[in-house]
Amino acid sequence: MMKIMKKSITDQMFSVLKEEIVRQRIKAGEQINPRQIAEEHGVSVMPVRDALTRLASFGLVTIRPRVGFFAREFTPTEVREIFEVRRLHEMYCMERYFHQIDIAQLEQIAEAMDSFESNPSREAFDSIDEALHDLLIAASQNRFLMETYNHVKDLIILIRHLDLGRIDYSHAEHRQIVDAIRKGDKALSLTYLKQHLDSVRDSTLDSITVEESLA
Amino acid sequence: MMKIMKKSITDQMFSVLKEEIVRQRIKAGEQINPRQIAEEHGVSVMPVRDALTRLASFGLVTIRPRVGFFAREFTPTEVREIFEVRRLHEMYCMERYFHQIDIAQLEQIAEAMDSFESNPSREAFDSIDEALHDLLIAASQNRFLMETYNHVKDLIILIRHLDLGRIDYSHAEHRQIVDAIRKGDKALSLTYLKQHLDSVRDSTLDSITVEESLA
Repeated sequence: MMKIMKKSITDQMFSVLKEEIVRQRIKAGEQINPRQIAEEHGVSVMPVRDALTRLASFGLVTIRPRVGFFAREFTPTEVREIFEVRRLHEMYCMERYFHQIDIAQLEQIAEAMDSFESNPSREAFDSIDEALHDLLIAASQNRFLMETYNHVKDLIILIRHLDLGRIDYSHAEHRQIVDAIRKGDKALSLTYLKQHLDSVRDSTLDSITVEESLA
Repeated sequence: MMKIMKKSITDQMFSVLKEEIVRQRIKAGEQINPRQIAEEHGVSVMPVRDALTRLASFGLVTIRPRVGFFAREFTPTEVREIFEVRRLHEMYCMERYFHQIDIAQLEQIAEAMDSFESNPSREAFDSIDEALHDLLIAASQNRFLMETYNHVKDLIILIRHLDLGRIDYSHAEHRQIVDAIRKGDKALSLTYLKQHLDSVRDSTLDSITVEESLA
């Protein structure tokens, strides 16, 4: 019983810390103090350390021996590589499974977009963003393809350095994609998706370069 | 210190068991007895169970609660899905990074193919097979693309139900691919790669269907 309890706390800490890192409440490059986190959550240090070690194997945490745990930072090359894997998966699914895209779910996303416009928030944007891109991958109905996509998805969310201006652009680009799919226009959907992915990548690279030149 | 030792044994058992499963010395569907494996390797049961649990998270082991651990079995749908992810990655790299393929390594593979022909063995074939397909992915120089490919690679190795006849066919197909790359003929390389991947998939599906109809 003790063993199972301990595992469950590690699992919980894993989810909590992953969310903190991915949503950038713990910033890229920031040192993570296991003792402090353990105190904050009223748990012992061991499950926190176990969770951080597991996050390191997912590439979200860096371990520097004898120094400690750090939230992962990304170089411009890594950002380009991650976006390449993302584009490979999304463009392939749009190209090959365009007619399997779940239109009922697409309409739900379109409704969420209407709500977002009358009441914009970062949380609403993130939720629409994730739902739309997941919808394209899910059209493949290929569990392994979803798994390989998910392997980079956390990293994609993590490297989203979007300011509110970029959210407006991205929202407009999402609109274009959704409308093109609704019209059944595959070629146009592919064009808009590619433009969107490239512009998100480029603005991410810009923000990283700015951070580096300020450092 | 104790903790580190224990971790290291789990890591070792993970590698040992992964190899046993992937090379099909433990057959698909076979029950795995942690106590027996622990005795064979002179370790306690806990690190073996930990290793099996980790293998389950990689999709190589199935856990049936209150029954035990089993080497993973695959349905025809799963085989098709895994091969789709494989083809997506390999065709993309051949298409986009054809001119970055490491020719020195390609020539080493060609030499290994000569040796294989004068002295064929399953081990030699497996090694050439892995080296050639990895070479295509490595041409992308994208670490994340290699990671997502590796996610299905263990499964690909695992579902290789090849008889000696199929090895001969695959070897001949590998020859065609290697020669087309050497000639710098990208279109032909793509054609041969696609043919090869489709025929390996189909023969894997055939062998699974035969096993199912015998079961």
